[in-house]
Amino acid sequence: MILRIRASERSYPIYIGQGLLDQGELLQRHVPGKRVLIVTNTTIAPLYLDRCRAALLSGNSGLQVEDVILPDGEQYKSLDVLQKVWDKALETRLDRGTTFLALGGGVIGDMTGFAAAAYQRGVHFIQVPTTVMAMVDSSVGGKTGVNHPLGKNMIGAFYQPRCVLIDVDTLNSLPDRELASGISEIIKYGLIRDPALFEWLEANMDRLLARDAEAMTYAIERSCINKSEVVSADEKEGGVRATLNLGHTFGHAMESSQGYGVWLHGEAVSAGTVMAADMSVRLGWIDPSIASRTKALLEKAKLPTEPPKGMTPEEFWKYMAVDKKVLDGALRLILLRGPLGSCVVTGDFDPAALDATLNTSCH
Amino acid sequence: MILRIRASERSYPIYIGQGLLDQGELLQRHVPGKRVLIVTNTTIAPLYLDRCRAALLSGNSGLQVEDVILPDGEQYKSLDVLQKVWDKALETRLDRGTTFLALGGGVIGDMTGFAAAAYQRGVHFIQVPTTVMAMVDSSVGGKTGVNHPLGKNMIGAFYQPRCVLIDVDTLNSLPDRELASGISEIIKYGLIRDPALFEWLEANMDRLLARDAEAMTYAIERSCINKSEVVSADEKEGGVRATLNLGHTFGHAMESSQGYGVWLHGEAVSAGTVMAADMSVRLGWIDPSIASRTKALLEKAKLPTEPPKGMTPEEFWKYMAVDKKVLDGALRLILLRGPLGSCVVTGDFDPAALDATLNTSCH
Repeated sequence: MILRIRASERSYPIYIGQGLLDQGELLQRHVPGKRVLIVTNTTIAPLYLDRCRAALLSGNSGLQVEDVILPDGEQYKSLDVLQKVWDKALETRLDRGTTFLALGGGVIGDMTGFAAAAYQRGVHFIQVPTTVMAMVDSSVGGKTGVNHPLGKNMIGAFYQPRCVLIDVDTLNSLPDRELASGISEIIKYGLIRDPALFEWLEANMDRLLARDAEAMTYAIERSCINKSEVVSADEKEGGVRATLNLGHTFGHAMESSQGYGVWLHGEAVSAGTVMAADMSVRLGWIDPSIASRTKALLEKAKLPTEPPKGMTPEEFWKYMAVDKKVLDGALRLILLRGPLGSCVVTGDFDPAALDATLNTSCH
Repeated sequence: MILRIRASERSYPIYIGQGLLDQGELLQRHVPGKRVLIVTNTTIAPLYLDRCRAALLSGNSGLQVEDVILPDGEQYKSLDVLQKVWDKALETRLDRGTTFLALGGGVIGDMTGFAAAAYQRGVHFIQVPTTVMAMVDSSVGGKTGVNHPLGKNMIGAFYQPRCVLIDVDTLNSLPDRELASGISEIIKYGLIRDPALFEWLEANMDRLLARDAEAMTYAIERSCINKSEVVSADEKEGGVRATLNLGHTFGHAMESSQGYGVWLHGEAVSAGTVMAADMSVRLGWIDPSIASRTKALLEKAKLPTEPPKGMTPEEFWKYMAVDKKVLDGALRLILLRGPLGSCVVTGDFDPAALDATLNTSCH
């Protein structure tokens, strides 16, 4: 199936289905120049690099295809590692008409997007995500970047791809933890705006965990639609986009405190989502059953529902203070409010509820 | 005087005059948040940092003003040095509403602009240029970035300032070589599209070299107008903007071959402009008098008119091949063609003329 995503300056397609990586003409259609740099990592390269290169060269396309293979993991989402992409591009004399193709998960997508945004002030960009997280989160919205030792995603750009190619078959090689991590973002879409998706997930989590292609295609499609609706609404409403960060302020603090790469992003978001739901109950903003259903669904997906052992409320405060959602010094959080599928972005809450959630969650 | 520059998404003012750095309300008007990070260098900080800070704080503005002082010179226009800006911003917990203010020459302006473009995916940006080069070149067009060991300005972004404040009094502290370097860009505007400016420069070069404030204000204003007309025309015509790079393809090769910072940018552009004029004569595209008047004017400004001693045609080729103006492998050059004030961007020329220019110019 094809979704068409409207971005501020132009629109681009997301192709979702089985076996798409072998349909070379799909990719070639979105390469405007003669040169492609595939950016991937040491885990994905042995699995899909040759197939991706073959797709780009099929039918004697005449493309020059280079590649650069980065180390795998969130701890390598740094400016230092990113420089290897630019080094390779300049060593092989890739010009302004080149297309950078991200083959991998969210880290590879975010890094390649920023590499493309900044290389010669902007070259073409294509995403071929190979994790659920990258498929449902990075495919829409144009956020790219790298981490800084003092904060996640602190250096980056908004940059749109020319197309996103999602071959759900690539999920068969995904480790269980990575699968669950991506599912936590799908659950998030249900919580913030799509109660029908949340209920579908309650009924179909087993199929997702079994990597059923049909269920996976449906969940990815619903997620991309939800995200694109939020992102395009933000151009008018201002601030709605922040709802996508449900659980992320707490989650980023957990990732920062442990050092990147110990927990997967979706694992931290999962524990952060439980905290946000807990705080929403304490504020009297949601029925307690929503928090318990949320925790049960995340547990069913085998995701963590508590912060890392030993993490203190003081550590949460330290890292939340530099979070991007802190505007002019006031902490704003994404919290649930109302029936299932409703949330708010607000700095207007009783700080005692936050303290209680931090104190109860830390153990 | 105030020029208003139209950029793609919004417009911004350029203030040009004497004593502007002491008019705090001018700067404060363009700071939307509560925090400013002044980025400057070791040469400019002792001269103007305190005055700039005082201007931002005048009238009890309540702003939080931080600063970061970088080493001075084109050789420090690197990603490594740029990281110091992001380190400082994160160490002092500057949020998304912060304004980055560039206080210095073109290197500081380019680096600060890119730092602002990428910090938390984009914060506000103000330019206070203190060199002629930065005033007439970096004030308009939104090009920001850093160098890579394999090429100049290879990593960057298009990013527009909220305002540019040009206090011509700051030129009184500018070294003679820097002054001349900036003047070479003013001469360029005359050559590519403004014959009246070229003739005014032939008559008034002594006043510019004496830093006469009135003459300087006129030359800067004309240059900014010329550049903004070219940049906005490019949104329709595609490619006209490249004419601003007259002399730059040769010039960049000279800078790359020597290592950044040995010659100033405008010095390399000056020698490159003489080469472009020489090649244009060989092609029969301009009257030889235009080339000789160009060389005479650059000499009057005390600028170099030949490549660095010992540089070979082979070195030119090596560095020109990665130049951003090489599109899909074909070398395009900006050359003069027609009466004074006319130029073309073309890959359609007799390569023998290029060889002859390279062989004659290298010594």
